[in-house]
Order: sequence, then structure tokens, then C-alpha cells
Amino acid sequence: MNALPLSIQNLVKLISQFPGIGQKSAVRIAIWLALRPKKEIKKLVDAIIDLKKKLKICPICFNLDEKAPCRICSDLSRKKNLICVVEDFFDLISVEKTGFKGTYHILWGLINPTQGIGPKELKIKELIDRIKTLKKKYKNIEVILATNPTVEGEATAIYLQKTLTPFKIRITKLAKGIPEGADLEYTDEITLKKAIEGRRELK
Amino acid sequence: MNALPLSIQNLVKLISQFPGIGQKSAVRIAIWLALRPKKEIKKLVDAIIDLKKKLKICPICFNLDEKAPCRICSDLSRKKNLICVVEDFFDLISVEKTGFKGTYHILWGLINPTQGIGPKELKIKELIDRIKTLKKKYKNIEVILATNPTVEGEATAIYLQKTLTPFKIRITKLAKGIPEGADLEYTDEITLKKAIEGRRELK
Repeated sequence: MNALPLSIQNLVKLISQFPGIGQKSAVRIAIWLALRPKKEIKKLVDAIIDLKKKLKICPICFNLDEKAPCRICSDLSRKKNLICVVEDFFDLISVEKTGFKGTYHILWGLINPTQGIGPKELKIKELIDRIKTLKKKYKNIEVILATNPTVEGEATAIYLQKTLTPFKIRITKLAKGIPEGADLEYTDEITLKKAIEGRRELK
Repeated sequence: MNALPLSIQNLVKLISQFPGIGQKSAVRIAIWLALRPKKEIKKLVDAIIDLKKKLKICPICFNLDEKAPCRICSDLSRKKNLICVVEDFFDLISVEKTGFKGTYHILWGLINPTQGIGPKELKIKELIDRIKTLKKKYKNIEVILATNPTVEGEATAIYLQKTLTPFKIRITKLAKGIPEGADLEYTDEITLKKAIEGRRELK
């Protein structure tokens, strides 16, 4: 690192904070940038500034978008009484790819006591307020708890289930089972057990 | 991708051109940037602009530095008549870490006919001119051909050896052998053969 010119060292320090980027990749990216034509660098810098300027957090579902309320919340064809609760923006994008026609609620995290993240750190109060408002307009409301099937995801889902039960709404979870294209021989026993438990009638 | 806001899509396109960064990592980095405080983003943008403004290519050895001639070429304690020829900036940094006290010459590439890279695309003419100038001042000049031990690296070294021989200077190559901490059982036979050929007397 010390053999590097100061301006590269400075940028490397910042780039190595990017998710998934280590020290070595950061050096490679910084040098690569140093060798790009000025025009391309201007484009990159403008895109970063533009992103920061234009992106807003939706006050309803906490999605990231250039509109606030976001494109999804302001889409009249979406079912406002069907809310898919996800951990973060990436999970929203994944569900969105399935053609889901409801709306979302991003928690921006999961309950994780070892990291000091409790319900108050997540957008749970906001979810409750949203449900209270929806109750005045809709008779039937469904909340899909689509947190990841990890310890933290399951703990958060259990917490949400307990918290939302008094509102007498439909609370569902994603089905568990063998993924498309899987091989039973290589499927872990817990997944296979859940797939058997959740077996469906052929009609 | 289409589910993403336009300003994220724009930045993702640029970030996915970074070396070693795929589409998925680029999305992660763009979102991460979108969620950073404005202050941090300003720091990053400033560091990129600063890098581009300050970095120069050394007219002697083609190193990247904030000084031109670079810190190495303008260091009076360095042996100017000992030149280590390397492919790129990263290789210079690696040799520099060994405590090497000579100077460098960055070729900025290797001869690679399949990619249309010939000697003219590299800083070879500049190396010859440099040696011609040095010959007027120094009696003994040594050029270490430190290109990587790959097909392109070896081809470039052979080309340089032929081109530099008429100048009656010392031309050397890095020693080949088993790397420090290696296990003979797992060393490939070519490396082991070279290690035996290059065996040294114990004194």
C-alpha cells in the first residue's frame, strides 16, 4: 500500500468499503479508474451524484425509487391490501421479478440481538401504522412474511406474526419445499422434510 | 434490471465495467452507495476526481505517480543503470515490495498476436531510447526481464532479449524454482525441472 501514490491510497480506502470488495480488488479498480479517459470518469462521477440526488425512500413501503411514493405504491393496478414484507431492496427486486401484483414493505433489516438490532431498528412500527390505515378502507388484508429462511429471518417472521395477529388480518409465509430443478439425492433433509409436510393434492 | 430505478440502472452499467465486478455486485454497490450519507458520497467523488487530476505517467519509466518523473526515477539513491522491465503497474508494486533498489520500465502490456498487440503497442521503443541515453553515462547497464512466466510473458522476454542484445548490456531474467513454503509433492513437474536445472551450490 505504501508504495502507492497518495491519491490512489485515498481512493482505495474508500473503494475497499464497498460491499464484497477487498483491498486487492480496490487497488485494481482505483488503477483502472486512473487509466480511464477523463470523459468516462466524468460520466461515472455524474452518475453517482445523480443517483444520490434522485433516489428517495418511499414513505409508504420504504422502497428506493425516484418517485415518492414509489412506482409500486402509486401504481393503481397494484393490490394495496396485499403486502409482501421483505428484509431489503434486493429481496423486493427478486419478488418483483415473479410478476407479483401486490405491494411491499421493506423492513431494512432483520431482528438480530447479537448485533443489537431489535424491532425498533426496523420499519415495524410503520408497518403497523400502515395496516391500521388500510383497515379503514379494506375488509380483507393479507401480509406475506417473506423474510429469508435463516435464523434471523424466521425470528423476525415469528415476531411479526405475534405483533400482527391482534389486527385480524390474513398472515402468510412463503411455501418451503424443494427448489425447481433440484435433485432429491442432494437436497438437505430439513428441506425435504418441509417439502413432504407441505405436499399438495394433485387434482 | 428493469425493475430498478433509472438512476441505479445507469450507475450499474458503469460499475459493472470495473475489473472483476459482475452485474450482481454492481447492483449491490450502487444500492449501497444510494444509502450512504451525502458526506461520504462527496468524499468518494472528490477522491475519484483528485486521482484523475493528480496522477501522471512518468516520461522515463511509464510508472503512475503524482510526480513526473516519478518518485522512483527521481530518487537519487536508486541505481539508474539497473532496470527491471515489468508488464504493468501491479507488477512494479510487487517488485517494489521486495526492497529492489533499481529502477523500472513498465511495458503496459505483453506481446499477444491473437489480440493484435505487437511490440509497437508496448513501451519498447522508449526502453531502447532510454538504454541509448544511459549508455552515454554508464559503463555497466543491467536489464532484468521480469515479465510473467506465461506464454505472452516469455514471448515478450524473448523479443526483448533479441532486441537488446546489440546494445551489449547485461540482460537477466528472474530465477525459476519452487516457491517459498511449497510442497514438492504438489509442485508441477515443469517448475520442479526448472528448480533442478537452476540448483545452486551451498557454500
